[in-house]
Amino acid sequence: MKAEIICVGTEILMGNIVNTNAAYISKGLAGLGVSCFYQSVVGDNDGRLMEVFREASGRADIVILSGGLGPTEDDLTKETVAKVMGKTLIEDEKAWEQIKEFFEKRDIKYTDNNRKQALVPEGARVLYNKNGTAPGIIAEGEQVTAILLPGPPGELIPMWDDQVVPYLKEKSDTAFCSEMIKLCGIGESLAETELKDMIDAQANPTIATYAKVGEVDIRVTASAGNEKEAHELVKPVVREIKKRFGSHVFTTDEDITLEAAVLQLLVENGLTLSLAESLTGGMVTSRLINVPGASEVIKTGFITYSNRSKRKYLGVKRSTLDKYGAVSKQCAKEMVKGCAAATKSDAAISLTGIAGPGGGTKEKPVGLTYIGIYVLGRIRVKKFVFSGEREKIRESATAAAITMLRQSLLKAVSCQ
Amino acid sequence: MKAEIICVGTEILMGNIVNTNAAYISKGLAGLGVSCFYQSVVGDNDGRLMEVFREASGRADIVILSGGLGPTEDDLTKETVAKVMGKTLIEDEKAWEQIKEFFEKRDIKYTDNNRKQALVPEGARVLYNKNGTAPGIIAEGEQVTAILLPGPPGELIPMWDDQVVPYLKEKSDTAFCSEMIKLCGIGESLAETELKDMIDAQANPTIATYAKVGEVDIRVTASAGNEKEAHELVKPVVREIKKRFGSHVFTTDEDITLEAAVLQLLVENGLTLSLAESLTGGMVTSRLINVPGASEVIKTGFITYSNRSKRKYLGVKRSTLDKYGAVSKQCAKEMVKGCAAATKSDAAISLTGIAGPGGGTKEKPVGLTYIGIYVLGRIRVKKFVFSGEREKIRESATAAAITMLRQSLLKAVSCQ
Repeated sequence: MKAEIICVGTEILMGNIVNTNAAYISKGLAGLGVSCFYQSVVGDNDGRLMEVFREASGRADIVILSGGLGPTEDDLTKETVAKVMGKTLIEDEKAWEQIKEFFEKRDIKYTDNNRKQALVPEGARVLYNKNGTAPGIIAEGEQVTAILLPGPPGELIPMWDDQVVPYLKEKSDTAFCSEMIKLCGIGESLAETELKDMIDAQANPTIATYAKVGEVDIRVTASAGNEKEAHELVKPVVREIKKRFGSHVFTTDEDITLEAAVLQLLVENGLTLSLAESLTGGMVTSRLINVPGASEVIKTGFITYSNRSKRKYLGVKRSTLDKYGAVSKQCAKEMVKGCAAATKSDAAISLTGIAGPGGGTKEKPVGLTYIGIYVLGRIRVKKFVFSGEREKIRESATAAAITMLRQSLLKAVSCQ
Repeated sequence: MKAEIICVGTEILMGNIVNTNAAYISKGLAGLGVSCFYQSVVGDNDGRLMEVFREASGRADIVILSGGLGPTEDDLTKETVAKVMGKTLIEDEKAWEQIKEFFEKRDIKYTDNNRKQALVPEGARVLYNKNGTAPGIIAEGEQVTAILLPGPPGELIPMWDDQVVPYLKEKSDTAFCSEMIKLCGIGESLAETELKDMIDAQANPTIATYAKVGEVDIRVTASAGNEKEAHELVKPVVREIKKRFGSHVFTTDEDITLEAAVLQLLVENGLTLSLAESLTGGMVTSRLINVPGASEVIKTGFITYSNRSKRKYLGVKRSTLDKYGAVSKQCAKEMVKGCAAATKSDAAISLTGIAGPGGGTKEKPVGLTYIGIYVLGRIRVKKFVFSGEREKIRESATAAAITMLRQSLLKAVSCQ
C-alpha cells in the first residue's frame, strides 16, 4: 500500500509554522508499513491544490491531506478534493450537532459560516472531532482514497491515532508489527556498529536507528499475514537487540521518555531527588518536572548560577572555588553532596560548566561540563566536553545528567 | 521571481526528522519577497528526485534543494540535478582542500569517498562550507537556477544567511524591505482587531501576524525598485503599528527574543534577578539563562516543588500554606518576597500553579497559576487559568511570567 501526504496551508509555505503534521503522519505510516515516497505542501489555492492532489492520486493508493478544513472561504481542501473525485458535498447531521455543541459549551456564537464545516462528500466516513469543529473525512474513490484531517496538531493527532490508524490497519491485507527499543548512554555510530550484521542482513523485520540528543531509538518493523505472525517475527529480533545493548535500553515502550523512565525508577524504589544546576539553569529539573507525578519525587531544585549561591545553598567551600574554579570536578562534587544534604534527598544531580559563547579558555573550553550524581551516599562525577551552540550544549548536558542518574540508580538498586 | 523547495531525504519521509529546513528557507524567501507556491519532500532516489526536480523546474525560476550532498552512494542530489540540467561534474580544487582540512583538523582519516563531495557542476558558483564538508552549489541553467544546500541545519542556515540571501537579493530586480514588530502581553485576536483597518487596506506593504505562546509577531514587507524606496514604504507603517501597541512592543529586531529583551532591561538598569518556580520547575530560569550573558544578571533560582522547600528557602509561612494552600495568591506573594530577600536581588519572579493532568479540583482547576513579581520593593501578583496539556500550561506560564517582569521593570524604570 502506497500513501502520499499533502499539507495545505499558506502559513507553511511562508515558513511561519514548521510542518510537524507531515512528520507525525509519516512516522505513523512507517509504523504501519505503508510506503510514503512523497510529501507536498501547497497553499490554500484551488488550482494548485487540484494539480497536486491529481498527481498524488495517480501515484498512490491513499492520499492524506491536512489543513484547509476551516469555516472561511479560504478553506477549500474539502471542496477541491470532492470536485476531483466527482463527489457531492452533503451536510452530516451529527457533525453539525457537534459543531453547535462545541460553540455552545464555550459560550461562543456560531454563524452559518460554521455550517460549511459539517459538509462531507456523499458516502464518506466521517471522523468526528472531539478537539475542534472540523470533522475529518475518509472518502473512498475508484482510483484513490482521500483522508482529510484538520490542520491543528491538537486535533489531527488524536484523530489520526484513534480513527485513521485503525482504518488503515483494517484496510491493509498485510499486518504490521512495530516495536521501539530506546537506548541512552551510547552514541549512534557505536549503536550502528553493534547492529551492523543485523542491519546488513535485514529484510523482514527491518531495523532502523534514529538519533536524538543523548538518545538512540531503534525501530523493528515486520509485516505478515496477520498481526500475531508479524509480532512473532519481531519478537526474537527485539530480544537480540535488548541482549546486545543490556542496560543501555531504558524502555521498549514508544511513549516513555528518558525522563519518565528515570522518574519511574525513583518512584519504584521510593527515592526522592533534588538538583543543583549551573550551566543548564533549570533545564534538567524542568525536563523531569514535565513528567506527570514528578511532584511525588522531586523535592527542590537550585539554580546556583553565582559562586555566592553555590556556597550559601550547597555549601561549596570558598577554597574549592578559589583553587579549582566553579567549573571543576571538585565543585561538582561539593555541589551534589551539599544539594543532597541540604534537602535530605536520597538522590541528587549537580551540573557545572561553560555553555558559551563567551567564557571559554584554552584549559576550560566552551562545552566543558562536570556532572555529579549522588545516590544513597555514593557520589560519582564525570567530565564532558560538549560541542555546538549554547542551547545544544545545555541540551546535551541535560540528557547526560539524566542518563548518569539512571546508571547510578540501577547500580544502587542492584546492590541492595 | 518564483522559487520552489525540494527537501531530499528518506529520514524526512519516514518521519524521523521534522522538516525545519523547509520552514527556514520559506521564511527567508518570504522576507525577500520571493513567492513560493510548493514545497516537496522526496527520498534519496534518482528516478523520483528527477521527476520532482523536472516538475519544479517547469514551474519556478529557482529551485532550492536541501540534503543528499553527503559522501555515500545514497547521496545523489548533485548527480541527479546535474543530469537533468545537462551539466558535467568537475572537481573544485578549493572545496577538496577544505574537505581535507576539515578532516585533518579533527584528526579523522578521509577516504576517496569524500572526494565525491568536492564535485560541482561545471560553471557553478560554489558555496564553501565552514561548518561541514559538503559545499553548496548555485547552478544557473537556461530554464532554471538550482541552489543545492547541505541537509544538516547547522550547515544550511549559515550558508543560506551568508551566501544565498545576498545572491537572491542581487538577482532580484525588485528590492524588498521587511521589518518585524514583536508584541507581548496581548492575544493574537485582539492584536488583529487593533490592526483590522490596516490589514483590510494592505497592498504594499503587506502586514501579517504570527502567534506564538505568549507572543504575537507582526511582519511588514514592502517591495520597490530599490531597497531605500522599499524601506521608505515600510517606515510609516511600522511607526503606526508601534504607536497602536505602545509598551506591548518589546522589540523590532527580528533576532531578539522576549527573554533577551527582558534580560537587556535588567542589564541596562544594573538590576539582578532571582526566581522561585513551582509548576514551571525551572523552565523560566532555563529560558532566561539561554540568553548569552545571563550570568551577569541572574543570581539564584529555586525550584521549590514541595511545601517544605517553599518554607525553608523562601520563608513561606506554614499558616499561609495551611490556610490558602500552595497554589494561592498569598503563597505566590510570600514566595517572591522571600526569594528577593534570601538572595538580596533587585527583582524576583515566583510561580505556583497546577500543571496537571492530575491535582485539579473544582475550586482550583488544572491550569490555575499565580505569578508574583518583585521589583525594587514593589510586589505584584496576578492570577491566570491556562488551558492545554501539562507542557502547554507550563510554557504559557513561563511566557506570562517573563512578560509580567518586563511590565514591572518598565514601570519601575519610568518612575525613577
